[in-house]
Amino acid sequence: MSVKTIEQLIEAKDYMKVKEVLSEMNEVDVAEILKPCDPHMTLLLFRMLPKDLAAEVFARFTPEQQLDIINSVTNRELAGILDELFFDDMIDLIEEMPANVVNKILLHTDAEKRALINEFLRYPEDSAGSIMTIEYVELKKDMTVKESMDHIKEIGLNKETIYTCYVTDQNRILEGIVSLRTLVTTNESFKISDIMESDIIKVNTHADQEEAANIFRKYGFLALPVVDKENRLTGIITVDDIMDVISQEATEDFQKMAAMAPSDEEYLDASIWKLAKNRLPWLLVLMISATFTGRIMGRYEDVLISVAVLGTFIPMLMDTGGNAGNQSSTLVIRGLATGDIELGDGLKILLKEFAVSFIVGLALALTNFVRLILIERVGILMSVTVSVTLLVTIVLSKLVGGILPIFAKRLKMDPAIMAGPLITTIVDALSLIAYFAIAKAMLGI
Amino acid sequence: MSVKTIEQLIEAKDYMKVKEVLSEMNEVDVAEILKPCDPHMTLLLFRMLPKDLAAEVFARFTPEQQLDIINSVTNRELAGILDELFFDDMIDLIEEMPANVVNKILLHTDAEKRALINEFLRYPEDSAGSIMTIEYVELKKDMTVKESMDHIKEIGLNKETIYTCYVTDQNRILEGIVSLRTLVTTNESFKISDIMESDIIKVNTHADQEEAANIFRKYGFLALPVVDKENRLTGIITVDDIMDVISQEATEDFQKMAAMAPSDEEYLDASIWKLAKNRLPWLLVLMISATFTGRIMGRYEDVLISVAVLGTFIPMLMDTGGNAGNQSSTLVIRGLATGDIELGDGLKILLKEFAVSFIVGLALALTNFVRLILIERVGILMSVTVSVTLLVTIVLSKLVGGILPIFAKRLKMDPAIMAGPLITTIVDALSLIAYFAIAKAMLGI
Repeated sequence: MSVKTIEQLIEAKDYMKVKEVLSEMNEVDVAEILKPCDPHMTLLLFRMLPKDLAAEVFARFTPEQQLDIINSVTNRELAGILDELFFDDMIDLIEEMPANVVNKILLHTDAEKRALINEFLRYPEDSAGSIMTIEYVELKKDMTVKESMDHIKEIGLNKETIYTCYVTDQNRILEGIVSLRTLVTTNESFKISDIMESDIIKVNTHADQEEAANIFRKYGFLALPVVDKENRLTGIITVDDIMDVISQEATEDFQKMAAMAPSDEEYLDASIWKLAKNRLPWLLVLMISATFTGRIMGRYEDVLISVAVLGTFIPMLMDTGGNAGNQSSTLVIRGLATGDIELGDGLKILLKEFAVSFIVGLALALTNFVRLILIERVGILMSVTVSVTLLVTIVLSKLVGGILPIFAKRLKMDPAIMAGPLITTIVDALSLIAYFAIAKAMLGI
Repeated sequence: MSVKTIEQLIEAKDYMKVKEVLSEMNEVDVAEILKPCDPHMTLLLFRMLPKDLAAEVFARFTPEQQLDIINSVTNRELAGILDELFFDDMIDLIEEMPANVVNKILLHTDAEKRALINEFLRYPEDSAGSIMTIEYVELKKDMTVKESMDHIKEIGLNKETIYTCYVTDQNRILEGIVSLRTLVTTNESFKISDIMESDIIKVNTHADQEEAANIFRKYGFLALPVVDKENRLTGIITVDDIMDVISQEATEDFQKMAAMAPSDEEYLDASIWKLAKNRLPWLLVLMISATFTGRIMGRYEDVLISVAVLGTFIPMLMDTGGNAGNQSSTLVIRGLATGDIELGDGLKILLKEFAVSFIVGLALALTNFVRLILIERVGILMSVTVSVTLLVTIVLSKLVGGILPIFAKRLKMDPAIMAGPLITTIVDALSLIAYFAIAKAMLGI
């Protein structure tokens, strides 16, 4: 059923049919249809939805829409929504709402849940704890497959996933994992202890969400258990949430590497002021640091005046250096993010970048030399000066680009800031110093 | 069980214990342990593995290791591995092996499977068809839940996933989808037609894998059906494979945006020659195009000689322009990749970038003006010249950076190449032209 058809049905006020169609649809699509409607229409359509679908759609609304709904529905309706909401969506909601609305929400939760909410709100941002949920299936070692299946049949609809089940002891210590696939394909009389996997791969509540994402990617899991310091099971992370994390972490790295403050707001939704605010600080820092490059040029003003053609090669040298450094830093930053490169690989990277930069630099320098002689018809000495500087610049850029992200990570900074823009600024200065030094030696200025 | 312990067991030649430990482990970890071993030891350990684990480990080997194993095992052992291998892993294997080994593999498959392999090999690279697999659970509309569960119990172990089941008619036309959760929590006597979802979200065999990835991300699915032009179910894509795609597509975009040929080889594994080869072409193109910027400077040589201080502001102007354009192009490229920005959004982007660039440009130009007057102690006219150029450069850069990715996509090119390095080269030339024009007007040179 297309969005168009539903809009037509709404316009025709055929609400019976609208209700029927919406009830059959995926919650993501329903949320998308309700998104552009005015608050009154949103509420009207929202109230038509079956209870469980309503909660799922509610979880996908923008905070503004959630606020509208909370302020418009009755207390009983609100209790119904909150009751159906998965715990991780509840936490997300509470984090976004103003204080008075949070109080209203907490009124509808019992003391035990409130304590749990407080515990979850304390997990650091971007930690495994901050993205986990508590609706998992818990089994005991001495249950049979039949008992487990009956248990799942009973509680399965209220769990975020039933496809991976967790075996815990009386102290909530995680002892094993059983997949529903194993349960379904095993003889009903078997004991859980016989079929559970005890080689458990898990993550700590305070681990970075990126660590959790890398585990998912490596093992292809559908869910990952999250344990506290005492190895007690406190929640699970599901693969649908981790896909958002993978995508969001990549987007943030793209933004940081392009010298912007990271933001998970979509470009088209973000206000002009917000976009400007994200972009200004780094541009300012980089602009001011670029003036040092200008100072270096200023110091060699007499050289530039006496051999003015020297100046015309500066853009090419600076750009190529920046590009070369950018290539190296990008590979290392991405490798660190996906876990392919580790902190101890610094020396390997330096050696590799040295070798690669020498090959690439030599190829570019030779091309450039031929071009200067044949096309630009510059003198031999000048051509040698520019080409040697090019080689030196490329080697320096790639070493700087390759090692600075590792350095940043060592200092517990985000490697992604050691990307193109900052590398370019550093490399600009280095290449100019090299250029003038080589020019002085070669041309005897 | 840690890798260290197993290495100790291997050294102690306690193979009974090694076998026991390996059999309990996740296939990813087993493959990781076997990876650095010499071929002889790899084969020894590989032969200890239970049949199904062996196939899963085999699928995770590098092509070199797979080749070693195929050349070392008996025909019967090979048949055993191939038999257990999932179809998508089989296709990956065949794509990597030399022709004579492919023939050896095909000898072990029946005519029907060979035909299917040929069909799959024809799907375009990076298409949905190229990453799908055929091991899905097929149900019929008139089956009961009980019958379906019995069917799954029987065949479940040989399917890539059993958590999403597909309902097809006699012509393999996809009619509905049932999750195992629904099956498990529903009364056994219900018919599949009563409980299946018929609002099916699917993808075509020839769709780009990025389209499939965006569907997974949007809906949080565990699996996605792939249909041919006649709407016949031809395969499914599972979420573990799509996580690789999401990660790999982001990595490729990072590489392209840093002016490199994309490669999914890990940095530390890639040879120096390969790395150099990926980096050289774009550096060369950009180096040559940067010489045009040099030419522009060359044309204004007399201006630069008469007012030499003009030259010292060029790095700052060029860098800031490059950075500003890079910010805009990055946001648009990433938005296009995740589906947040669409082709029709060009005008919205232009207007947004114009407003943002004006705010950012004004802030930077004012800062710069104050700095020039107070710190650098340059004359008013010169300060105005540089600051106005800065504003113009930033506005131009952001417009160019914002619109070129859209333009590239329109021309069916990859938007990611319209990133920092190329934008910088274009913006360099624009900013220089603006600079000299404004300088001439302001300073009356």
